[in-house]
Amino acid sequence: MSLPTFVKLVEVGARDGLQNESQFVPTAQKIEFINRLSATGLSVIEVTSFVSPKWVPQMRDNTAVLTGITHQQGISYPVLTPNLQGFDMAVAAGATDVAIFAAASESFSQKNINCSIQESLARFNPLCQRAQQENIRVRGYVSCVLGCPYEGTISPQAVAEVATRLYDMGCYEISLGDTIGTGTPTKACQMLEAVATQIPLSQLAAHFHDTYGQALANLYAALTMGISVIDSSVAGLGGCPYAKGASGNVATEDVLYMLNGLGIETGVNLTALCQAGQFISHYLQRPSRAKVATALCITDYPNQNA
Amino acid sequence: MSLPTFVKLVEVGARDGLQNESQFVPTAQKIEFINRLSATGLSVIEVTSFVSPKWVPQMRDNTAVLTGITHQQGISYPVLTPNLQGFDMAVAAGATDVAIFAAASESFSQKNINCSIQESLARFNPLCQRAQQENIRVRGYVSCVLGCPYEGTISPQAVAEVATRLYDMGCYEISLGDTIGTGTPTKACQMLEAVATQIPLSQLAAHFHDTYGQALANLYAALTMGISVIDSSVAGLGGCPYAKGASGNVATEDVLYMLNGLGIETGVNLTALCQAGQFISHYLQRPSRAKVATALCITDYPNQNA
Repeated sequence: MSLPTFVKLVEVGARDGLQNESQFVPTAQKIEFINRLSATGLSVIEVTSFVSPKWVPQMRDNTAVLTGITHQQGISYPVLTPNLQGFDMAVAAGATDVAIFAAASESFSQKNINCSIQESLARFNPLCQRAQQENIRVRGYVSCVLGCPYEGTISPQAVAEVATRLYDMGCYEISLGDTIGTGTPTKACQMLEAVATQIPLSQLAAHFHDTYGQALANLYAALTMGISVIDSSVAGLGGCPYAKGASGNVATEDVLYMLNGLGIETGVNLTALCQAGQFISHYLQRPSRAKVATALCITDYPNQNA
Repeated sequence: MSLPTFVKLVEVGARDGLQNESQFVPTAQKIEFINRLSATGLSVIEVTSFVSPKWVPQMRDNTAVLTGITHQQGISYPVLTPNLQGFDMAVAAGATDVAIFAAASESFSQKNINCSIQESLARFNPLCQRAQQENIRVRGYVSCVLGCPYEGTISPQAVAEVATRLYDMGCYEISLGDTIGTGTPTKACQMLEAVATQIPLSQLAAHFHDTYGQALANLYAALTMGISVIDSSVAGLGGCPYAKGASGNVATEDVLYMLNGLGIETGVNLTALCQAGQFISHYLQRPSRAKVATALCITDYPNQNA
């Protein structure tokens, strides 16, 4: 067991977070929010999704957001692209980094995107070929890696198979999503072990939801296995689309507080991050779901980790 | 690294939790709450505190609570006793298990109980002698083991010294409290390692607060070191006395969900526990702070751990 010395945080609040909030956040606020995130030291900020506005109305201003933000050198701004049409729109808007997604659960794939896992992967083949020709980087997401709302348990082998297919298509990184947050540390480790037999650990990201409060424990377990890329959402933006009032993405502030305490470098400033989280929470008129943000904003403890 | 096969959960919601809630919970509700906890499979339920009602008005009905609850065979119902006077009152009310407390931080001891660590320990000597004569079990709490609101960092050695003093006085178990919740996993392990050089691991309990969202990660780290006693508070009762709106004790439901997922036996039924938590949350008219309770009550996922 040894912890990584550096962890890359992939901030997904502006996309995975805001697309699951009930209200539409106006373009100007999104741009301001993303520009604030760019000033925190984050190196990857997922910004929007080029999906049909019928499916995800919250992201209907994708082109305006991607062209409106200030693109800082050294920061990548990936966008989600479900198909070739979305890919073309994203590239036309200046995207150089896109993300595709598949489920490790057959039932979830059918109910979420109306096709089998195999069909979804087949659709991504031409997208990945086009991306290679145009020198666009592609990130792959796998959902339901630690449980499915319809099937319950998902085998680590099923996750490894889908992850490997995405990796073989050319994805530079595979993000493993505990979509419903039912994972616990041993299961997280078993899943990561299975995937790591096929894909180098350095190419894997942990994307864990906190619906059952388990995310930080699972992330700590993943870190002890050598995982060094973590997806998270500032202010815990997003909630859980399947459970009103429940939390979804783990809050970046809480993840960063743990990494700071563990002595793991990230390059991200906790105070600036909390301020970006407060900005968007204030706009949404609800308290931050980051416990660190709540604790830091209302106390004046000596905070050795800040 | 190996996880324990069984963990004893020490439920502190009715004492450590309710004493930090702003409102006084009437005796009848406390009794009903504790009786519900007794039906969950918990084997240790801390029920009240025999401290001055001037200090802790929420516990002013201590005798009525301890004599009013149904004492189930096989369950112990410890109470907090700060001095010999409180001890005598507790024993007169039928207590067979008491708890005493000291801080690992000199400043915290001075500000919290107006005396030095040494003075506080000296006070407990006659109490422990009396307890031994009367065959009363004594549990010891150490606070500020992973940080102090006044001093910041606390050395693992300082924690080990205070813990050892309490252990040498005859405490059967030492509960190590991250009072302000600033601990992270590596620091938790370093502290536990230092204490475990003096006291058998089986005699140590982890009492971690979730103010910064770190409790479950710290508990998982503690479990990998062999810790097999965990203090927690149903519904996350208690909040943080130093930070309004911030959480305090880790929620028992979230801890139990993790232990179930790890395949660790506890004897506690998650559904019954969530119901006890809902009962008291409903009385307090606020949502449970247990993420598991929120997720389970509003979804109908297949839940493999329930």
